[in-house]
This record gives sequence, structure tokens and C-alpha cells, in this order.
Amino acid sequence: MSGIWGNNIKVSIFGESHGNAIGITIDGLPSGFEIDMEKLLFEMERRAPGKNELSTARKEKDLPEILSGYFEGRTTGTPLCAIIRNKDTRSKDYSKLKDYMRPGHADYTGHIRYSGFNDYRGGGHFSGRITAPLVFAGAICKQVLEKEGIYIASHISSIKDIKDDDFNGVNLTREELFNLREEELPLLNKSLEHKIRHKILQAKYEGDSVGGTIECAIIGIKAGLGNPFFDSVESTLAHLIFSVPAVKGIEFGKGFEMTRMFGSEANDEFYYDGDLVKTKTNNNGGILGGITNGMPVIFKVAIKPTASIAKEQNTIDINNKTNVKFRVEGRHDPCIVQRAVPVIEAVAAIGILDLIKGAGQ
Amino acid sequence: MSGIWGNNIKVSIFGESHGNAIGITIDGLPSGFEIDMEKLLFEMERRAPGKNELSTARKEKDLPEILSGYFEGRTTGTPLCAIIRNKDTRSKDYSKLKDYMRPGHADYTGHIRYSGFNDYRGGGHFSGRITAPLVFAGAICKQVLEKEGIYIASHISSIKDIKDDDFNGVNLTREELFNLREEELPLLNKSLEHKIRHKILQAKYEGDSVGGTIECAIIGIKAGLGNPFFDSVESTLAHLIFSVPAVKGIEFGKGFEMTRMFGSEANDEFYYDGDLVKTKTNNNGGILGGITNGMPVIFKVAIKPTASIAKEQNTIDINNKTNVKFRVEGRHDPCIVQRAVPVIEAVAAIGILDLIKGAGQ
Amino acid sequence: MSGIWGNNIKVSIFGESHGNAIGITIDGLPSGFEIDMEKLLFEMERRAPGKNELSTARKEKDLPEILSGYFEGRTTGTPLCAIIRNKDTRSKDYSKLKDYMRPGHADYTGHIRYSGFNDYRGGGHFSGRITAPLVFAGAICKQVLEKEGIYIASHISSIKDIKDDDFNGVNLTREELFNLREEELPLLNKSLEHKIRHKILQAKYEGDSVGGTIECAIIGIKAGLGNPFFDSVESTLAHLIFSVPAVKGIEFGKGFEMTRMFGSEANDEFYYDGDLVKTKTNNNGGILGGITNGMPVIFKVAIKPTASIAKEQNTIDINNKTNVKFRVEGRHDPCIVQRAVPVIEAVAAIGILDLIKGAGQ
Amino acid sequence: MSGIWGNNIKVSIFGESHGNAIGITIDGLPSGFEIDMEKLLFEMERRAPGKNELSTARKEKDLPEILSGYFEGRTTGTPLCAIIRNKDTRSKDYSKLKDYMRPGHADYTGHIRYSGFNDYRGGGHFSGRITAPLVFAGAICKQVLEKEGIYIASHISSIKDIKDDDFNGVNLTREELFNLREEELPLLNKSLEHKIRHKILQAKYEGDSVGGTIECAIIGIKAGLGNPFFDSVESTLAHLIFSVPAVKGIEFGKGFEMTRMFGSEANDEFYYDGDLVKTKTNNNGGILGGITNGMPVIFKVAIKPTASIAKEQNTIDINNKTNVKFRVEGRHDPCIVQRAVPVIEAVAAIGILDLIKGAGQ
Repeated sequence: MSGIWGNNIKVSIFGESHGNAIGITIDGLPSGFEIDMEKLLFEMERRAPGKNELSTARKEKDLPEILSGYFEGRTTGTPLCAIIRNKDTRSKDYSKLKDYMRPGHADYTGHIRYSGFNDYRGGGHFSGRITAPLVFAGAICKQVLEKEGIYIASHISSIKDIKDDDFNGVNLTREELFNLREEELPLLNKSLEHKIRHKILQAKYEGDSVGGTIECAIIGIKAGLGNPFFDSVESTLAHLIFSVPAVKGIEFGKGFEMTRMFGSEANDEFYYDGDLVKTKTNNNGGILGGITNGMPVIFKVAIKPTASIAKEQNTIDINNKTNVKFRVEGRHDPCIVQRAVPVIEAVAAIGILDLIKGAGQ
Repeated sequence: MSGIWGNNIKVSIFGESHGNAIGITIDGLPSGFEIDMEKLLFEMERRAPGKNELSTARKEKDLPEILSGYFEGRTTGTPLCAIIRNKDTRSKDYSKLKDYMRPGHADYTGHIRYSGFNDYRGGGHFSGRITAPLVFAGAICKQVLEKEGIYIASHISSIKDIKDDDFNGVNLTREELFNLREEELPLLNKSLEHKIRHKILQAKYEGDSVGGTIECAIIGIKAGLGNPFFDSVESTLAHLIFSVPAVKGIEFGKGFEMTRMFGSEANDEFYYDGDLVKTKTNNNGGILGGITNGMPVIFKVAIKPTASIAKEQNTIDINNKTNVKFRVEGRHDPCIVQRAVPVIEAVAAIGILDLIKGAGQ
Repeated sequence: MSGIWGNNIKVSIFGESHGNAIGITIDGLPSGFEIDMEKLLFEMERRAPGKNELSTARKEKDLPEILSGYFEGRTTGTPLCAIIRNKDTRSKDYSKLKDYMRPGHADYTGHIRYSGFNDYRGGGHFSGRITAPLVFAGAICKQVLEKEGIYIASHISSIKDIKDDDFNGVNLTREELFNLREEELPLLNKSLEHKIRHKILQAKYEGDSVGGTIECAIIGIKAGLGNPFFDSVESTLAHLIFSVPAVKGIEFGKGFEMTRMFGSEANDEFYYDGDLVKTKTNNNGGILGGITNGMPVIFKVAIKPTASIAKEQNTIDINNKTNVKFRVEGRHDPCIVQRAVPVIEAVAAIGILDLIKGAGQ
Repeated sequence: MSGIWGNNIKVSIFGESHGNAIGITIDGLPSGFEIDMEKLLFEMERRAPGKNELSTARKEKDLPEILSGYFEGRTTGTPLCAIIRNKDTRSKDYSKLKDYMRPGHADYTGHIRYSGFNDYRGGGHFSGRITAPLVFAGAICKQVLEKEGIYIASHISSIKDIKDDDFNGVNLTREELFNLREEELPLLNKSLEHKIRHKILQAKYEGDSVGGTIECAIIGIKAGLGNPFFDSVESTLAHLIFSVPAVKGIEFGKGFEMTRMFGSEANDEFYYDGDLVKTKTNNNGGILGGITNGMPVIFKVAIKPTASIAKEQNTIDINNKTNVKFRVEGRHDPCIVQRAVPVIEAVAAIGILDLIKGAGQ
């Protein structure tokens, strides 16, 4: 199986980059929820390509059409399906893709997995474009969560070797998080913006690409969410985050950095702040034993450099069974980290809402 | 939900550190499979405490009793349940745990999650001891996989700031992997052993603890295993790996390091080696678009320093709602990384077998 | 949850009778399967209303549009989504439905379940119209099964008190089954057709409705399909069959009739017919211990009389909290049993394909 | 898969009739629930064999041992596993079973399904004995439901051709239901008891067996429980009920009888009884569109005659591939309907609790 996830909120994703439409069905939404369409489209806009020189010049009109589960401006509670028609699809650009397996892409693995019957145009079902429906679904989940006082936001934690600061894990305000959403390159240390922009454009001019990391924070989750073992908050979020193309790593709290600490440094000591239980540090990213402890939930995600580059590369022609040299034609993102930000937030929102809906259990 | 996982192989885990027994049920095993009990017990021994000065002095006789699904030395194909009785449990050591929430542990989050009704003794259901049944289940899955030519092994990639070499991602032999299993401190660069041992013992003598990372490799998986989106190899393995207590991060292939490369460096170029499709590098850890490409599957896991330390720590008394100072009494592991190695391999085996059984689909 | 089902083939259904579109996503289909569109549309036509005086005069142009998972005439193996636009929807007819809870319908239970936010027009998500996507999905599964030599067909076993013969459970040919599919009123005893037609029309003229039973047979399934306990063939089929609106009962083989036999009559004795294991009778409907025995799988389904009738009925006005009398306006089916036939076959096909795909396990 | 079921309450069953132990793990129970052990054992006693001449003389001491998830007399909320050791197992009686496939049993289908590696002794995993853990799990769920005002009880609706009355579907009191639980042969028309007892004993003396039907009622469920399509109350209960060995049919409300009514008779008219919405009749068994309407949930189950009979039968010797005549030796139940009553109630309790726990969604 592949395109369906969830226990209490289920999403069912479908579509190929150059097929008729892409879309998603969300099952388990509360009934009577008023969706703020402007906010929803704003989230989709954050992911959309073609906004500026940092991303591909392709223009996608990602206007979703809601087919079901939505009546008189509110969710009905029955499955909500939305689709996005595919339009600006220059199929010619991708003609070689049928035989030339682009390095770093899923062309080869998809070819084997589906015995050569997959729709190879533009990466088909593996295209980053299929994350648009994820953002759609996540945007609704985000709105539901915000009504319960839970807010999700992220900043670009690094682009190549340029590192932003880390979130202050013990003190994060809603305002700080909201402001990040407005930025094209959301950074805590805004002085890095010029340097990062330059780094991305430099890669672009060299026909190359760069990657980076995203740090995501979720505030407002009460202590006690999640489960030991197989449905821990970490398992749930990691499962979803690795569904996003180009993600190659995830760490919670200080993650890999924690492995270089002593236990006495790494342990987050508890204390009473009035009636509230807090921790002095938040190395564990708000999660202990797979369950939230009431502190901000924080995690970092590794996004590899865009696989599509203009530089010449070696690869195979799977039809002729020969080694070949080629260039990936068409327009590409020199960096997709900034476009991945709303996708990471979206799947995190889906995961957290799923856990919350199961928490009555 | 919490204790059940799987699509094609399902495991159902249960037990508390100081309850009657811990155990696991495995559903979906092939019928007629002859379990090599010696090999199985060897895996469990690798995880067992009390072997030497590096781990806790507690002696656990983790002899599993198979209750079902096993007949005349072979699996029947029906659910196989095995239990391990709890014995060497000095309950007195843990008496304070009821009220004092140990930093870095799940005492507080478990208390909130289960409204104070969880079995707090020795961490209860959150105890690392509950990973013994996981190793049991994983050891069987490993044997099934080995019959299909798939081998899993790991080395300690780092302890605190001491870093071992990385696996050679494009050329890994069965022998290399097998040899690692025999080592108490499996390392690629064996000259580091003394230094690491010293680092761990030093932490022990200071009443402190250290963490580290584990690099795991799986060879013999054919190209085409896994699925796009929600059941990718990465999602599947990450989900399971984060079920293991103390894990705070995972990265596939070069993971976070990839975010500092250019696309032209990160992309693994394909080539024909005779009829075989290979990649020149393996930065992607054998997985593209969530699906294996035939190269070794490689990932690294971050294990935080043992939360139980002898040093005095600040925390809360949840009964009296006061801030307190205390020391975690009893015997503890100054480092659990080496004991986590077979656990990581075990859950990886469960995950890969699950995907393989679903691959007929 | 509600709209998603399956282990190895997953379907995700969505839509309301008067919304933008209804549809279904099928995940887990084999790749490279050539869909026979003519056969598929024939199945959908069997379910369609408006064909003759026995069913409602509403005309539905149930032409599905495939949005994804289908490329150059073949399945890609990725999720296949198809939608059907809603057209001929005289919303006025249904205006009273908002407050008047039609007896026998899901108006009241849906209203409570979704706190009044469900789309009530034409029954919304509970409308029989939503079975069209099920037939679409089932028609594809049927084609996949037929390639493996498995055939599904049904006859009307009874309409009200007029009983057709039963299938010969030990000897059923492909031809017999195929012929049934061509009939508008598929009957084994064709001499009953006139009587049944008259019974339905009589009910129609009286503003009333009738129900009946459907007997479904599946031939070509090898012995050994299914599982003990929770994923038995019976559990799987019953789960799906009860998803079809208006179904109130299911029995396998002789079902309720078996409870009136002695064990010595009910037991199906085995014998070797050459190398083949057969049973002399097939009271168990081809299933023992939840697993197929190689004989035809046979079950009967109870379809209640159409809930929408023209006669005056008592019910409640849920807005004014009063008891009221009313007539369900609009055009209705005096009998939906014949239209339910392809729906029952469709969900059976989905269920059997799911079990078969899991059988590699 | 086979032994795991559930969405919000999950059960994982294991064991063979003559293996070390049988048992069940229940995941998702509320924490802090005080189990009334006496009531629990009473339920298990109702299912136990050997009580009188109506059932087999085998004595099973089905004393469950709780291994986990239970601390200081209360559920912890973590997985609760209980096992029952197998004792009185005269293995000799079953020696022929290896090759002689008992008609009506799962010997043959199990043999094929598990390639001959299943534990054939006493039916192995297919033995009715494995329902004891189901009763254990169901008894806990029943207690949880009763705290929420939901009560489940059943009567024997028929034994062979002797029919008891039906439940009064619109008016059922807790007392009526409770009294039924005390009876060995729970009947509404108690005057039938002698006749039924005689019918069973007559079959016994003739080396034969009889079956029957069970009518089960659940009161106290509020309107709005369940879901359209795949997780309807009917789908959920039918799925679980068909997991019980020997069940061959289920119908909700008037079920098959409804197919012989006119719509005007079958529709249950709504009315306000004060503020309460009720229906004048309950032909739909309290369920419309898969969702409860607040009336008693009522369903009937068909239990086939015990497959094990003393009479000589024809069957196959699967080892020698010959047709043979044989008698099933050992002690058998001439009728298992009365012992199936608590099993049906148990799985119904599991199903309803699962739906209720998911209803927060």
C-alpha cells in the first residue's frame, strides 16, 4: 500500500504530475468546521512554485476544487475530497525520462516497482507536485488544531553550510511562530537571508542545487499525547515526514547532538512553575517515552539538494541497457527547502490531529 | 493504540518491567519455518544486561517461552506468542519512582497519559526491558530474511564524541556484517575500542552516562521494495526505530550530511555493472522515492545518553507538587548504545520482512 | 472512520448525492493491467437507474472520469482515482428532508452523527448513489480476478415472498454465471420473471416498495484462501457487504437453514475426485474455519424494501420537534434488489482480491 | 493476517488447543478501570464445557493469568495480556486427525492454508477452545460498557426447528437482559426448555448434533454511533461475529424477514416520546445507514450443528490420498449454541466498545 495513512484522521492521496488531476481525500474531520479558505490558499501559495527566482519558473495554478464533504461553507464530517487539475505541463521536456533514469530521483526505483508501467512524465506519482494535496489537507488540520490552541511553524535551519539559530525550546510564543509563516525564507537570524539567497542563486547559475534543514515547532500540545512503542509522537511524525519527497533525516529536540552530551546534560530537569510542570531545558523536543510532556514539540528535518540539476550527469538508459551522459532539461528549483517548509508543517498537522483525535482513547 | 504494528507481519507487544511477564505475539509468519533457537538466543543475549562492566549489573534470565504458533520445531503460520517471566526485580529500588519523576524518563509523561494508573515500577511498560520481546521477534524475522539472502548488521557509529568510520555504502559483504555481530562493541575502526570503553567507564565512575549513534546496513534487498508516500521504506523503518526507547534521530544514507552537499555531489549516478544496475556512490542509503534501488540500505540512529544516572538531579514530586532533588538509585547502564544494537536490527528486520511480504502486492 | 477499507487493496470512497462529485480511490492494484472499459461501463450500467419501469425514472449519466493511476490504457500501480460528476439533481424535491426524517433512511442517524452538518440533500453521503463508485472499483477488481480464473455472479434469490431456486453449490459453470449478468432480472428459474415483475409494479402503483434476497457465487478460488478468526473470508465479505446500503443480513452456504439440520446432514463430506478434493454437498458455502475449501463460495444477502415510498408516513420534524405526517416526494425505485446485484458482486470482488493479494503472506 | 482486530480497542489472539497456552492481548483499554474478577470468571464459566450433559465432558480449567496491563486491581491502560494454560488434553484421541480431514471442520482448509504445518491436534488454532480468550476480553469490555449504561444479553432464538420468541425490539429492560445471563438455556419462552433439552440429548444419543440461532440485544447505545460505509455498526459486528467458529449467518433486526415485507411495513416510523426520538417498530434492529438510532441494537446469528459427531462419516485421508470412512472419537458437544452465547456477546462487546472509543472522532 502507499497512498493511505492514518488511524483517526485518514488521508488518501492520488495523482501524477502530468495526469488529469492530483488530489486527496480526508476522512475523519470534525463536522461543522468552517474552513477559512483564504488561510488555506495562503498555505498552498507558500508551497507553490514560480513565485521568484529561487524556485522553478513553472506556474502552477493549484486551485483545489472540493468535491465532497463540504456543505454550506462547513465540513460535513464525511470524507472531504479535493482535486487540483494539472495544467502547465510541457510534456516534451520529459520525453527522455522514459529511458534515462535521473540520478537522485525515483525514476529507476519506480520503474522497477511498477514493472515499467508507471507514468514517468515529470516523475509521475513521485513528483514533488503531489505534495500540493498534502498541503491542502494539512492546512485544514492546522486550522482545526489552531482552534484547540495548537500552533505549528518552522524556520529554515540551514541551507547547505549556512546555519540559522535554533528555536528556544523552552520559550516560544505564538507571535514568533506566526511571523515565520509570512517570510519567504523564514529565519530566526534574519541577517542570514542575503547570504542564503546568494548561495541558492550561485548554485542555480552553476546548474547545480542545494539542500538544507528545517526546524519545526509545535506549541500548545498538552502533556500526555502519544503512546509508548508503535504509536509514539516520534513514530507518527517520522512516518509522515518521510513520506515527503527529498527528506533524508529527522531528529527530535537536540537529536544527534544529544548523543554527544552526558546524561546529566541531556536530561531535561522538571520543575513546578506555579502549578505548571515545565522542564529547564528541552533537549528531548517535548517528547519522553513517545509522549508529549507539555513543552514545545520540536524536530529537525534534512532535505537533500534538489535532484534535478542542469549539469551533465552519468546514468543509464534502461531501454537500451547502456550507460549514458545527459542533462535534465526543463526548469528546476535550485533549492526546494523553502517550498518544503509548508509541506513539513502540513504533514505534522495531520499527524498531531490524528493523535489528538485518538486521545479520547 | 500503542502496542500493535504491522501490515503483513503484525507484532503485538505487552508487559511491564515488574509485572508477571513481558512478551510479544507475531502474526503473519510463514508456516513451516524452522527456527534456529541457538541463533535466536544469541540475539537475545546480545541485548541482555549484566554481561560486563559496561552495562548494568542486573541479571536478566531472558529465556522466552513460546506459547503458540510453534509445533514440532517449526512455525505453524498462526500467531506465535512468546513470553519472558520477570524475575530479578528489586522492587524496593524503585519505590520513590511513584512520586519522583526521573528526568529524561517517561515517568511524568506516562503518569499523565494513564492518569496515574500506570505501573511505575522500573519504568513499567516504558522500561527498556520491554525491548527484549522485540529482539525475540526480530531474531525470527532476521532468520526468515537470511533465507531470502537478506542480512542486517550494525556498528557503533559513535559514542559521545568518538566517531567510528562509516560503512562503505557501495560495497558491503556478508562476512563483514557477520563479524560485527560477534563483537561486544562492534566497530569498523577497531582501534577505537579502548578509547570508547574508557569513555563509558569514565562516565560510569562519575555517576553519569553517555549516548551515541548506530549505523545499520541491510544487504540483499532487491530494487523495487517499498512504496511512494506513506509506506516508503524510510517511513516504515523510521516508524519502528522510533518505537525503541532512547532513539531521538534517524537519517538514511548520508542524511543530514547530504544537506551540506551540492546536488551534483549528492545524486548517486547509476551505471551498468554488466547486467546489474548500481550507483557509484550511496548517499541516498539505497532508497529513492521511498523504494529500494538494490544498493545496501543504510541508516544511522541517534541514541541519547542513558537517562538513569547516579548524579543528583532536580525534579518534581508529583504527589506533593514540590520541587525536589534526588538520585536515581539502583544499578544502571552508563551506556546503552551497545545493547541497543540488536534492538535496532530487530525492528529493522520486522519492518523489512513486513514490506517484503507485502511486495507480492 | 468510515470511507476507507482494505488491507492489500484499499478503497477510499467519497461523495454526496447532490455535491460536486462522487468517487473512489483504489490503492494496491497491480501495475500494467489493461482495463476493459466496455466491460467496466457495462457493470456500471447494470446498477444505473432509469433503465425501465422497475426502477426510478431519474437518469444518471454515471460516466466515470479517471484522474490518476491510469496511463496509456493500463493501470500504473499507483492510486487510481475516478470521479462521477453529479448532474440530474432536482434539489427542490429534497427540500423538506432537512427537517423531516424519512423512516427507514439514515436522515435521522446521519443528522445525529454529524451534529446536523451533513449534506441532507438526497440522502447525501448515505445515498444509494454512492454505490456507483463501488461498482466502478469492483468492476476493475472483477477483471483482475477473471484473469486469475475467478468469476463472480449472482441471481435474485427472492423478491418479497417469491423464491427463486438456489445455486447448485457443487457444480457451477462459468457459462451459467456469465448468462446471469446479461439479465435485467437474473433468475435461475426464469419462469418466475413475469410474476416478479408484476409484484414489483404492483408495489409501485400502490406507492409502496418490496425487497428481496440475492444469492452470489464465486467460482475458481483455490482451497486455502482466508484466515482463521478476524480475517476469515466470511468476516471480510460480511464487512464489505454490510457497507452496502439496505443490506440487513448475510448467510454463507445454507446459513440459517443449516441451523435446522443435524450435524450429519450439514457436514459436507470430502472425497477425492481424481486428484481433486471435493465435497459432496456444499452447505458451508465453500468456507470452513474462515478459509476456502475449493468449492464455490456462496452467500445470500437480504435487501430490505426501498425505504423511499410514496405512501404517507408518520415521522418527526427534527427542527420543530414535532410529530408529522408526510410523503417522500420525487421518483423512487419500487425495488432496488436488481440494482443491488452488481453492487454486491462489486464489493465481493474487492474483498476477494484483497484476500488473494494478501495470500502471498 | 488473522489474529488481530480493531481500531480503537485492539485484540490480538493466539493459541492452539493442545499447545502450551492460549491467550489474548487487549490494547486500548481505559486506564484505572477496576475489573470485577468474579463477574469476569462468571462469563468464562458460561462458555466452559463439562458443566452438564448438554456439552462435552471435557473439563477445562480456564483460569486466565493476567500477565500485563493490570496493576493493583486496575487496568494500567497499557496492553493487557492474559493466558490460559492448556491442560486436560488427551492427545491420543486426536492422533488420526493428522491425515483424516473431519467434515465440517477446518482440518482440510487449515492443512492447505498452512501447507501442512498447522498444529492439527484438537483442531489447533481453529479449535472452539480459542474462543475462551475472546470471552475473557469481551467480559472486560462488557464491564466497561456497563459503566456507560450499555448492556448486552442474548437468548437462544432456536435449536434446530424449535423457535423461541423474538425480543421485543422497542421495549427491553436491563432486568430482562440480566436474567437471561443466569440461565443455562436462556429462552424468552421458558416453556420450551424441556423440549429443547430433549432435542439436544436425542441428537447426542444418536451420535449426532444440532445447531440453532442466537438473538442478541444491546441496550443503552445512544443514537449516532457508527459510520456510513465501511465502519458501520453492522460491518463491525458482522466482521467480529464471523470470527466465531461455526457462525454461518447474521441478520440485523428482522433481517431476512424484512425482505418479505412491504416498505410501508418495514420502515420504522419515528415519533417523539417527550423529548426522546423513538421508533414505533424496530425492524431495522436499531441501525439505519450503519448508525445507531437509539433503539435497542438487535441481531440474530446462525450457529451450525457441531461438526464433531460420533456417527460414521466419509472423508479423505490426505496423506494416502484415499477416500475413507471414520468416526470422530473423543467427547463432543451435541450442541454448542448455548456455549456460543457468551462468545457472541463477548465479540459484540469488543466491537461496540471499539466504536464508542472512536466516537470522539
